[in-house]
Amino acid sequence: MTYCVGLRLDEGLVFLADSRTNAGVDQVSTFRKMVVFERPGDRVLVLMTAGNLAVSQTVRQIIERDNEAGGKSLWTVPTMYEAVQIIGDAVRAVRARDAAALAEAGIEFNISFIFGGQIKGERMRLFLVYAAGNFIEAQDESPYLQIGEAKYGKPVLDRMVTPRSTLDEGAKCALVSMDSTLRSNISVGLPMDLLCYEVDTLRVTRFATIDTRNEYFRMIHETWGQRLKQVFSEIPDPIWEPTVAPVHQDEDPPAEPVRATPPADLLGENETQPRAGFQTLADQAGRKEQLL
Amino acid sequence: MTYCVGLRLDEGLVFLADSRTNAGVDQVSTFRKMVVFERPGDRVLVLMTAGNLAVSQTVRQIIERDNEAGGKSLWTVPTMYEAVQIIGDAVRAVRARDAAALAEAGIEFNISFIFGGQIKGERMRLFLVYAAGNFIEAQDESPYLQIGEAKYGKPVLDRMVTPRSTLDEGAKCALVSMDSTLRSNISVGLPMDLLCYEVDTLRVTRFATIDTRNEYFRMIHETWGQRLKQVFSEIPDPIWEPTVAPVHQDEDPPAEPVRATPPADLLGENETQPRAGFQTLADQAGRKEQLL
Repeated sequence: MTYCVGLRLDEGLVFLADSRTNAGVDQVSTFRKMVVFERPGDRVLVLMTAGNLAVSQTVRQIIERDNEAGGKSLWTVPTMYEAVQIIGDAVRAVRARDAAALAEAGIEFNISFIFGGQIKGERMRLFLVYAAGNFIEAQDESPYLQIGEAKYGKPVLDRMVTPRSTLDEGAKCALVSMDSTLRSNISVGLPMDLLCYEVDTLRVTRFATIDTRNEYFRMIHETWGQRLKQVFSEIPDPIWEPTVAPVHQDEDPPAEPVRATPPADLLGENETQPRAGFQTLADQAGRKEQLL
Repeated sequence: MTYCVGLRLDEGLVFLADSRTNAGVDQVSTFRKMVVFERPGDRVLVLMTAGNLAVSQTVRQIIERDNEAGGKSLWTVPTMYEAVQIIGDAVRAVRARDAAALAEAGIEFNISFIFGGQIKGERMRLFLVYAAGNFIEAQDESPYLQIGEAKYGKPVLDRMVTPRSTLDEGAKCALVSMDSTLRSNISVGLPMDLLCYEVDTLRVTRFATIDTRNEYFRMIHETWGQRLKQVFSEIPDPIWEPTVAPVHQDEDPPAEPVRATPPADLLGENETQPRAGFQTLADQAGRKEQLL
């Protein structure tokens, strides 16, 4: 499995990729999933891959070969839109060649890419390319894109990232998102590649490969976990109070659990019939002082 | 979609279920997914369902019918192990009847249950029943079980829940986990049913149906988000510093991004060749004061 995340912020782009590949859980290896196309002063393009490793390697092969063959090339196209189309076309070429054989072997044609960067004269752009070769672009309302094992790390992105976040905040948030993913899915692994692209620099200015010895990531890993526990402990516990009959039945949510009905012979023993003598969460009035 | 979570703590069991069902995104309705079998003083059993609603309703139907038919019944079996087998057998009965027809219609036989409680004379037990009718049990090392849209809410459970957590902490953590899920997946929805079973009481003592008007959940929703942002802002930003050639190449992680090689004609223009003049994350020495 893989986890990659890309952020498009006003200050620049953040790219973060783990480096674990696995087939099942007993064939695990390290493969770096981020590749950089840099012509300083002209363009920086970053490609991150998730999914079938053979497919992603073949896509990269095709991109390189087309360069050599004098076709459209990531090194020379004038726009990001043409650049991302090259990725999409390469995915379709691999599908045309390999998908049937993979299907015969019962293997899904499973691949996705985050692709972003800036070409001189254009704004920064960030795309997600699907297995069908089509793609979407990050926008102000959705400033981040994820591929691979995306769900564990999504809540923190949803809460923290806006286009106005600084590049450093973006990097920090991507690392917290990765930390949550690493903790919950063993098939996502260190080291990871972090590249922060500063808008309009048109060169790679900030890059780090991060493993367990990286002090900054260790600090995030430890601090975030400890502080979450602290915040959690500071949230008041629920207060339970006896249920009362609701005054306005229609306005209140049902206060009873859905109950299965015991068979008639059990109902015969009168005391075994379900009763409503439970406690429920205290309501506003009872909680006001606790909340303040 | 659905999200249900069950916790097995020393103090008791926590059950939390949302109430949204959907077929696609345009056919959304409310269906309560928690059902309680209570014979005060004898047993409390709680069943929560995720997956195909027709399948889960049929399973519940079968459980009730078998009661009436005088077969093994959740109301009378002497052990939790026999009780969970009744659920598993019902799943298999529905599969035998419906799976082929569902497959013909291109619909997956997709169902899972969290089932737990306590029967007089036994310890509390908590199970997850799969679509194949087999099941696993929560243990001290894995004190919680999830069904449905589980991933968004998993990191907080991984960090906070141990068997030693109090019942109130467990309820709080389940609600935070649900809050993260609600925020990231629109197909999980309020109201939700929360049932906290206190060990050895053998009756329902704490239950609440929680919607947006519930003050405690609103407090969690707001406080958790705000405090997360605060914790996040308190974590220092990364410090970037110029890269230096590593002294011991072998011991250090690769400090260079993986770069694609430009074609020969571009390499001819000497200055366009990728260079290593980027910044990288500051290492331990440079970060010590920031960390303390």
